[in-house]
Amino acid sequence: MKAAVVYKPDSLDVAESVKEFLLSLNVEAEVCEQSKELENYNFIVSVGGDGTILRTLQMLDECPPIFGVNTGKVGLLTHASPEDFKEKLGKAIEDMNIEEFMRIECTNGERLIALNEIALLTAVPARLVEFTVCVDGIEIEKMRGDGLLISTPIGSTAYALSTGGPIIDPRMYCVLVVPVAPFKLGWKPWVVDASRTVEVTIHNRPCLAIADGHRIVEIPPGSKLVFEKSGFPARFFKIPNRIKRITEMLRKMD
Amino acid sequence: MKAAVVYKPDSLDVAESVKEFLLSLNVEAEVCEQSKELENYNFIVSVGGDGTILRTLQMLDECPPIFGVNTGKVGLLTHASPEDFKEKLGKAIEDMNIEEFMRIECTNGERLIALNEIALLTAVPARLVEFTVCVDGIEIEKMRGDGLLISTPIGSTAYALSTGGPIIDPRMYCVLVVPVAPFKLGWKPWVVDASRTVEVTIHNRPCLAIADGHRIVEIPPGSKLVFEKSGFPARFFKIPNRIKRITEMLRKMD
Amino acid sequence: MKAAVVYKPDSLDVAESVKEFLLSLNVEAEVCEQSKELENYNFIVSVGGDGTILRTLQMLDECPPIFGVNTGKVGLLTHASPEDFKEKLGKAIEDMNIEEFMRIECTNGERLIALNEIALLTAVPARLVEFTVCVDGIEIEKMRGDGLLISTPIGSTAYALSTGGPIIDPRMYCVLVVPVAPFKLGWKPWVVDASRTVEVTIHNRPCLAIADGHRIVEIPPGSKLVFEKSGFPARFFKIPNRIKRITEMLRKMD
Amino acid sequence: MKAAVVYKPDSLDVAESVKEFLLSLNVEAEVCEQSKELENYNFIVSVGGDGTILRTLQMLDECPPIFGVNTGKVGLLTHASPEDFKEKLGKAIEDMNIEEFMRIECTNGERLIALNEIALLTAVPARLVEFTVCVDGIEIEKMRGDGLLISTPIGSTAYALSTGGPIIDPRMYCVLVVPVAPFKLGWKPWVVDASRTVEVTIHNRPCLAIADGHRIVEIPPGSKLVFEKSGFPARFFKIPNRIKRITEMLRKMD
Ligand SMILES: Nc1ncnc2c1ncn2[C@@H]1O[C@H](COP(=O)(O)OP(=O)(O)OP(=O)(O)O)[C@@H](O)[C@H]1O
Ligand SMILES: Nc1ncnc2c1ncn2[C@@H]1O[C@H](COP(=O)(O)OP(=O)(O)OP(=O)(O)O)[C@@H](O)[C@H]1O
Ligand SMILES: Nc1ncnc2c1ncn2[C@@H]1O[C@H](COP(=O)(O)OP(=O)(O)OP(=O)(O)O)[C@@H](O)[C@H]1O
Ligand SMILES: Nc1ncnc2c1ncn2[C@@H]1O[C@H](COP(=O)(O)OP(=O)(O)OP(=O)(O)O)[C@@H](O)[C@H]1O
Ligand SMILES: [Mg+2]
Ligand SMILES: [Mg+2]
Ligand SMILES: [Mg+2]
Ligand SMILES: [Mg+2]
Repeated sequence: MKAAVVYKPDSLDVAESVKEFLLSLNVEAEVCEQSKELENYNFIVSVGGDGTILRTLQMLDECPPIFGVNTGKVGLLTHASPEDFKEKLGKAIEDMNIEEFMRIECTNGERLIALNEIALLTAVPARLVEFTVCVDGIEIEKMRGDGLLISTPIGSTAYALSTGGPIIDPRMYCVLVVPVAPFKLGWKPWVVDASRTVEVTIHNRPCLAIADGHRIVEIPPGSKLVFEKSGFPARFFKIPNRIKRITEMLRKMD
Repeated sequence: MKAAVVYKPDSLDVAESVKEFLLSLNVEAEVCEQSKELENYNFIVSVGGDGTILRTLQMLDECPPIFGVNTGKVGLLTHASPEDFKEKLGKAIEDMNIEEFMRIECTNGERLIALNEIALLTAVPARLVEFTVCVDGIEIEKMRGDGLLISTPIGSTAYALSTGGPIIDPRMYCVLVVPVAPFKLGWKPWVVDASRTVEVTIHNRPCLAIADGHRIVEIPPGSKLVFEKSGFPARFFKIPNRIKRITEMLRKMD
Repeated sequence: MKAAVVYKPDSLDVAESVKEFLLSLNVEAEVCEQSKELENYNFIVSVGGDGTILRTLQMLDECPPIFGVNTGKVGLLTHASPEDFKEKLGKAIEDMNIEEFMRIECTNGERLIALNEIALLTAVPARLVEFTVCVDGIEIEKMRGDGLLISTPIGSTAYALSTGGPIIDPRMYCVLVVPVAPFKLGWKPWVVDASRTVEVTIHNRPCLAIADGHRIVEIPPGSKLVFEKSGFPARFFKIPNRIKRITEMLRKMD
Repeated sequence: MKAAVVYKPDSLDVAESVKEFLLSLNVEAEVCEQSKELENYNFIVSVGGDGTILRTLQMLDECPPIFGVNTGKVGLLTHASPEDFKEKLGKAIEDMNIEEFMRIECTNGERLIALNEIALLTAVPARLVEFTVCVDGIEIEKMRGDGLLISTPIGSTAYALSTGGPIIDPRMYCVLVVPVAPFKLGWKPWVVDASRTVEVTIHNRPCLAIADGHRIVEIPPGSKLVFEKSGFPARFFKIPNRIKRITEMLRKMD
C-alpha cells in the first residue's frame, strides 16, 4: 500500500510525523507536492484545512481516498487533529470504509471540476454581469448581478451558504444553482437532480469561472457554459455521521 | 375501465361534460364526492384547481392516477383547461403514461399525509411556539417562531416558497424542512434525503399540524412527531416537462 | 412622587421588594394591576419581561416613564435585574433621564396601538389572505400570504426580525412594512418615513389584527386599515447605549 | 443662468438638442465633459442613464441641481425622455423646485463620496475578506464574505437591493449596512440614523472600496475606514412622488 502525504506550507512538521506514523504501519508513505501524480497512490493524507483538500482535488480526476488531518479552521472535510490522528488514521486504514461525493464539471470549453462549486463572477468588480440559466434546455432565470454559483450538496455549506442557498444533505445527488447579489426582486435558489444539465450563457461582460476558489478561468461575453455531474467523484475515508458533522460546523461558524 | 370525476363546487357543469366525454370513449365514468371509495377507480379526473386535487388526495392511500382540468388559478398539478380537455384527456388515457410524486407522512400519533407539506403552526396567533428538529436522531435546529414546514419537492413551490425555501426538482426524493417566521438570527432551510427520518418536538404550546392546508390536527405541547417519506405516493398522468411547468407557474405568480 | 409597580404573576415577591425600596426613598409606591389608571402615576416600575411592559403599554395612551426589572428572558426593554435594581432604579429616579419611542396606531376603525408591531394575520391557519398595501396612496405591494406586519423601529428586533426585516436604529422615526410568508417571488421589506400613511386592504378572508401579540381584533374581508405614527409615544427611563443593548440581545438569542 | 449638459458617449445628439432647447429659453447652455468645473453652473442636464448621473456626481462636492434625460435602462434618477424633455425641462426651470438626497462619505484616508453606496469588496475574487463593523464605537458585526455595502436610502434600490437590504424611503436620513455574500448563518441588514458613525476594519486581505461602481480605491489589510453622512448632498429637480417612482422602477426590473 502506497500513501501520499500532502500539506499546507505551515504544516510540514505534522506532515512529517504523519509519514513516520504510516511507515510504522508498513505503509509506503511519501510527503508529496500536489500534482496529477497523486492519482497513483492508494490513498492520500492531507495535512491542512479544507482549502488544502480542495487544492489537492483540483489536480485529480480519479481520486484515491483522502484522509484529512485538520490544522486549519472549519474542517468540514477533515477526519482528525494533529493530536488524535494516529488512532483515527490507524482505524481508517484498517477499515478502508470509503464514501464518495459528487463533483460538478464544466463539460464544454476549458475543463473545470469542483467539489464545492464553480462560481461565475463578474470580472469587473461592482459592475453587473448579465446571464441566462437553462436546465435541460428550459430557461429558469435571466438576471444581472455579481454572478452565479453552480454548487454541489457538499458545497451547500461553503460559498452557497453565503448567497441564500439551503443546506443540502451530502448523501444526495443534485446541483444547487444560486445567484450572487442578483439585481432582481424575485429569484430563488434551485435544486435540480444531478441527471439534469445546467447551461449558463454570459451576455454583456467578461466573467471569471472559479472552481473551489482556486482555479480561475476568464470567460468572454457571449460564452455558453455547460455543467454536469462529474464522472470523477471525490473519495474520502468515511465520516460516520455527516448530518452531525454539518451541525457541528455550523455551530463553530457563529 | 372505471373513472371518477371529482369537482370543486363551482365546477359541476364542467365535471358533467368531462363525464359525457369519458362515456363517449366507453369509459365507465361517474361524478363522485371526494372519499376513500375513489381508490377503487382506474383513474380520477379532478375538475377545479390544485386545491381540489389536494383535497382529493387527503382521502387516498393507494392513489389512482389523477388528471386535472383546471378551473382555478395556478394549476401546477393540472393537465388541461375546460377548453382543451377533450384532446388532452383522450391522449392521456391512450398513453397511460403515469408519474409518481413522493408524499410525506407523519408516522406516529394521528395519521397525516401530504403532497405539499405538513405545517406545524402555533395554535395561538402571534405567540411563539418552541420546537426542536432532529434528522436521524441529530438535532439540527432548536427555535421559536410561528412554526415549521415539512415539505416535499412538489411542495417547494407552495407554502415553503413563502418561507425562504429553495425550488426543488420534483424528480427528486427528499424532504425540505423550513421554519415559518423563526425568531432566530441564524437558520437555514434544510434539504435531506428521503431515506432520513425527521422528528419534531413541540415544547411550550399547543400547535396545529396541517396537511396540505386541509386536514388539521391539534398537537399538545410536549409531543414528538415523526415524519417520513410515505409508502403511498401521489400518481398523476405525466406532464412532459416539469421544469418548464414550474417556470410557467412562477411567472404567473408575479 | 407616585409610582406604580406592575408585575408578571410569577414575580409578585420581587414587585413587593421594589415597592419597599421605593417607599424607603420616600416615593409613594403601590403594587397595581395593569389598567388605564396607570396614566396617573409619575412613573411605572414593571417587574417581569418585555411581555409585561408590552401588556402594560396596551392600557396607556399618555405614558409615564417605565423602568423595567427583568425576571424574563430577553429583556430588550428592561433596565435592571432583581439583583441590582436598587442601585439602578435609585440612580434613574435621581436623574429622571427619559427617552421616547414611537408607537404605531391603527387610526381608523377599532383603536389599536403598539410599541412593536401590529400584525395582520390570516384568521384561518395555512389558508392565504390577500391584501394590498399603499403608502401615501401609492400601491407598493399586493400579495397573498400568512399576513403582514406594520412595525416600529423598536419592533424590528421582535416579530419583524423573524420575517426578513432589517434591524432599525430605535432613534429613528419610521415604519417597517414586512409580509409574513408571502406567496410571491419578488417582495421586499419597506422602511418608510413616519410622516407617511400606510393603508392595508384585506381582500378575501377574515384577518386578525394583533397589537404587540396581546390585543386581538377580528377584521372582516374588504376592510381597509390605516396606520400612522401614534401621538402617544412610549416613554422609558433612558438606557445609555441602545445600539449596544441591541447587539447584546441579538447575541443572547442564538 | 448657466447650464451644463453632460452626456453618455452614445447620446451626444440628444445632448446637442437639449443645448439648443436651453439656448431657445435664453439659458446659457454648454455641452461639457464631466469634471469639477460643473460646480460653477446653475444647473446640470444629464443625458444618459442613472450611471451617467452617478459618474457626474463623482466629480462634485457642491452640487448644482441635476435634471436627467433618460437614454438608458432603469432611470430611477431621471426626469424625462428624449421625446418629452422639452415640456418637462421647461417646467422644471420655471419652478426651480429642488430636492436633496444625502450622500455617504468615507471621511478618513482617501476621499470617497457616493449617492448609492460605497462597496468594500474582496480584491481576490472568491476568497473571503474578514471585517468588523462598528456603529458609534459598538461592534455590530464581525464576519467573512465577499464584502460589505455602506448604502444610502437612494442606494437601497441599487446594489443593496441585491444583497438582502430593505427598500428605504429616500426622504429619510440614514445609513444601510449590508454584507455581500456573508459566510455566517446569522446576520441582518442594519439601518442606522445618519447622525451615527460607521467604522469598518478590514482584517486579512486587500479590499477594493468602490463608490457608486465608478471610483475604485485599493485598501490594504488592517485599514479602518470611517463613514458618515456627507456634508455635500446630491441635488435634483424635484420628482413629485418618489414612492411611486420606486414602485414603477421595481416593476420594470422583473
Ligand atoms: N463569500 C463567500 N462565502 C462563503 N464561502 C466562500 C465565499 N467565497 C468563497 N468561498 C468558499 O471558499 C472555498 C475555498 O475555500 P478555501 O478554504 O480553499 O479558501 P479560504 O478559506 O479563502 O483560504 P484558506 O482556508 O486557505 O485560508 C470555495 O470553494 C468557496 O466555497
Ligand atoms: N402563506 C402561504 N404561502 C404559500 N402557500 C401557502 C401559504 N399558506 C398555505 N399555503 C399552501 O396552500 C396549500 C393549499 O392550497 P389550496 O389551493 O388547497 O388552498 P387555497 O389556495 O387557500 O384555496 P383555494 O385554491 O381553494 O382557493 C397548502 O398545501 C399550502 O402549501
Ligand atoms: N414568530 C415570531 N417571531 C418573533 N417574534 C414574534 C413572533 N410572533 C410574535 N412575536 C413577538 O412577540 C411579541 C410579544 O412578546 P411577549 O413577550 O409579550 O410574548 P411572548 O414572548 O410570547 O410571551 P412571554 O414573554 O410572556 O413568555 C410581539 O409584539 C411580537 O413582536
Ligand atoms: N450586483 C449588483 N446588483 C445591483 N446593483 C449593483 C450591483 N453591482 C453594482 N450595482 C450598482 O451599480 C451602480 C452603478 O450603476 P451604473 O448604472 O453606473 O452602472 P451599470 O449599470 O453597471 O452601467 P451602465 O448603466 O453604464 O450600463 C452602483 O452604484 C451599484 O449600486
Ligand atoms: Mg478555508
Ligand atoms: Mg389554491
Ligand atoms: Mg416574551
Ligand atoms: Mg446602469
